[in-house]
Amino acid sequence: MPINTTGPAALASRVMNAEAAAALITDGMTIGMSGFTGSGYPKAVPTALAQRMKTAHERGDRFRCRIWTGASTGPELDGVLAQADGVEFRLPYSSDPVARDKINRGEMEYFDMHLSQVAPMAWQGFLGQLDVAVIEISGIRADGTLIPSSSVGNNKTWLDRAHGVILEVNRWQNPALEGIHDIYYGTALPPNRVPIPLVRPDDRIGETGFRCDPDKIMAIVETDMPDRNLPFSPPDDCALAIAGYIVDFLRHEVSRGRLPSSLLPIQSGVGNIANAVLSGLLGSPFEDMTAYTEVIQDGMLDLLRAGKLRMASATAFSLSPEAAAALNRDMGDFRDKLILRPQEISNHPELIRRLGCIAMNGLIEADIYGNVNSTHIMGSRVQNGIGGSGDFARNGFISIFMTPSTAKEGRISAIVPHVPHVDHINQDVQVIVTEQGLADLRGLSPKQRAKVIIENNAHPDFRAALRDYYDRALAHSYGLQTPTLLHEALTWHQRFVDTGSMHA
Amino acid sequence: MPINTTGPAALASRVMNAEAAAALITDGMTIGMSGFTGSGYPKAVPTALAQRMKTAHERGDRFRCRIWTGASTGPELDGVLAQADGVEFRLPYSSDPVARDKINRGEMEYFDMHLSQVAPMAWQGFLGQLDVAVIEISGIRADGTLIPSSSVGNNKTWLDRAHGVILEVNRWQNPALEGIHDIYYGTALPPNRVPIPLVRPDDRIGETGFRCDPDKIMAIVETDMPDRNLPFSPPDDCALAIAGYIVDFLRHEVSRGRLPSSLLPIQSGVGNIANAVLSGLLGSPFEDMTAYTEVIQDGMLDLLRAGKLRMASATAFSLSPEAAAALNRDMGDFRDKLILRPQEISNHPELIRRLGCIAMNGLIEADIYGNVNSTHIMGSRVQNGIGGSGDFARNGFISIFMTPSTAKEGRISAIVPHVPHVDHINQDVQVIVTEQGLADLRGLSPKQRAKVIIENNAHPDFRAALRDYYDRALAHSYGLQTPTLLHEALTWHQRFVDTGSMHA
Repeated sequence: MPINTTGPAALASRVMNAEAAAALITDGMTIGMSGFTGSGYPKAVPTALAQRMKTAHERGDRFRCRIWTGASTGPELDGVLAQADGVEFRLPYSSDPVARDKINRGEMEYFDMHLSQVAPMAWQGFLGQLDVAVIEISGIRADGTLIPSSSVGNNKTWLDRAHGVILEVNRWQNPALEGIHDIYYGTALPPNRVPIPLVRPDDRIGETGFRCDPDKIMAIVETDMPDRNLPFSPPDDCALAIAGYIVDFLRHEVSRGRLPSSLLPIQSGVGNIANAVLSGLLGSPFEDMTAYTEVIQDGMLDLLRAGKLRMASATAFSLSPEAAAALNRDMGDFRDKLILRPQEISNHPELIRRLGCIAMNGLIEADIYGNVNSTHIMGSRVQNGIGGSGDFARNGFISIFMTPSTAKEGRISAIVPHVPHVDHINQDVQVIVTEQGLADLRGLSPKQRAKVIIENNAHPDFRAALRDYYDRALAHSYGLQTPTLLHEALTWHQRFVDTGSMHA
Repeated sequence: MPINTTGPAALASRVMNAEAAAALITDGMTIGMSGFTGSGYPKAVPTALAQRMKTAHERGDRFRCRIWTGASTGPELDGVLAQADGVEFRLPYSSDPVARDKINRGEMEYFDMHLSQVAPMAWQGFLGQLDVAVIEISGIRADGTLIPSSSVGNNKTWLDRAHGVILEVNRWQNPALEGIHDIYYGTALPPNRVPIPLVRPDDRIGETGFRCDPDKIMAIVETDMPDRNLPFSPPDDCALAIAGYIVDFLRHEVSRGRLPSSLLPIQSGVGNIANAVLSGLLGSPFEDMTAYTEVIQDGMLDLLRAGKLRMASATAFSLSPEAAAALNRDMGDFRDKLILRPQEISNHPELIRRLGCIAMNGLIEADIYGNVNSTHIMGSRVQNGIGGSGDFARNGFISIFMTPSTAKEGRISAIVPHVPHVDHINQDVQVIVTEQGLADLRGLSPKQRAKVIIENNAHPDFRAALRDYYDRALAHSYGLQTPTLLHEALTWHQRFVDTGSMHA
């Protein structure tokens, strides 16, 4: 009960239940919530808010808000608010299935943003004013500073920018979290920006808690609820093959002297394949590795335990329930090896470029020239969002994208003639890996890339059709820098929409 | 004659004519040349090299090279080498019409790169080894350092990385250039990168010349040849309208307190419209402006003369012949207001983000969701290249793209249902301006953007067709995050290829 025991006495009067706190939120407000990849999001107030929204809608009243977060959250935030039809506008990232359906039915506006840019753009002011911040923390110190929870995200910015603050103090979070956070207060708007003084992934450049004007605190709600993350599947043969190719590639780069034997700081996207790659690094020859990434997944804890990874910097945890329980148990062993930072720092282009991160991200599909779609199924239906992949892909030392070569039991090819939506332009895509092989695209022209991608990445069931498209494009394209058959480029996707398969 | 009078005596023996210097280059070599937007490129050696290539080809011998530069050059480099069929592979940017034809006929490989990434990627090593650097300079000092010419580009990196160096000392360049350059030698490969100590556009962080190992200098060729830049057209009504909307927008941002009254450092792409915008700023209320950009164009000199612009930092000049002559005449007045830097610094994401540049770049076409194609006509035929637009658009404080709303006497719409090639993803495109109006896309979801772009940017002749496409996409798209009709998305471009017009 950190509030009563150590927090400023004046705050005790603002302790209330979630329903009373949610009643401070009204129709049309913009709310900045905590939460990043299913950790550290508020759980009680959004649920109570959703109930109020439903009740209002039953009365025929309008009650919808604009919701900003760090990234994805959990069912008790994005899920319940979407179910209540309570979200008018959402940024910057969402992976909730209910919200996704609403968005793709056109019932909810979604601005899918580079995660590094959320805080600076909020400061720039054109996203509009922020009415309320609803932030999960793990405690309040006697000096009034807030002990962050299992994610940092944009919390510093929401606390600074919001007119009012609602805190959820979650006693489920391990008290040993205290001290692992590094909250940098040196950002500014131009012309007052200065170099960010971080030159190693383990540099600490900030404070261990959030500053918060106590006069802005409208409500404090005590909770005891677990973060809800999904379990990871054990890596299948496909994921293991991808991981194997990546480890081989990195070994090759080390042997050529293009990477140090401890590699460079690793960035790894979220998901089963990313986790498999981390597992693959367990058996690799690399030692004394570091991670400078968005989220700390199960595989990273294994690498830390094994002593292969020296430390990991991120903005959030994204752990399976088992790994979360184990981390809570063993936090004492890990706390000096983990740093959680604001996402504007974990994803900052300046720092990613300086550190030279090895960026590893997933994709939905790539075209034969290496343009990557990582967000829009069939070009129009959003899956999750671009997240931080653009921050890392453009600024990393090497930008790797990985995917199984097919989806939907082989009916969808991840390598297509033309992507109907682009998140990563070919210049930002240096290596593509599928279970079929690895395409090293560095320094290649579009036509050179096409050959390598078709031969190394595509599934054999689609390879002949891709070769055929490319050969005919070479013969008939308007120009031959990036040969394209306009009338045919998107027919694979149209066929899937029409027939459920990209196969002709 | 800087070599004989002040250069190290040992170098005198390496003075030779262009033909003898070109004879040091052999088939298959990779050559790093100076040159950026038609300034500071070597003129005599490439011409002599092209002649040798032609002669070899007439004999039936192979003689083709890989050519790296800063950006575009002039007819005496890209033009003659392409005419001689002497370029096997070209990076990172080219605008030469002969080379463009070769590329689009599939006779020359072209890797179109972010300009900030060329030097670091060359250092990373996977572009291959650099055999020879051919660099135009304006003099050699007694201590052996080289006085740069009218562009800096990647010269520092080529001089450091190449096995051998050929220098063209061009006495046409104004001796008063000496001292305006700022060559930063603090870059490194990770894990040894540190913050770049530049916090204002006028900070000097380097040296005024290039270091060069004298043992690597294979040849010194003396020339007296002008840079060849194209004249600017006087701004037409369309360019003036675009400039007017941009100035109004910037005034509005200042009035809302989102920009200081001196604005933030301006980045301006190359071309007539960009130049018109600079002219528009002449009559604006903004004072004490600065520029942190790639190239210094005519309009910037006018702003400097008028005292509206305090100083300009770039990597090259791109001046009309008249402005170049005037600058050569008045260099004494300008030299403390101009800084030329390596392009890895002029375009560095770290610095663009820190300074908060106002990015203004041209485009070929944008789709109704704000994805921008700035390189590929009809998706396949390259025009010039992405250049530095990606460096500035993603990292700037505000990212503005501008274009006339139609091309080819109204037969092409610059606003289309779907772009067949993406250089700038919608997240990196915040404002689009045509002579029809300005679309402020900041903080908008894709569907919100579509309405603003169609109504504010599209030409009235195409507006109804765009509305019709969008309405039908809303009714029939697979998903409604980014409504798309796959079978129709690229038909405007196909129609142009078939009929010479996008009009149905």
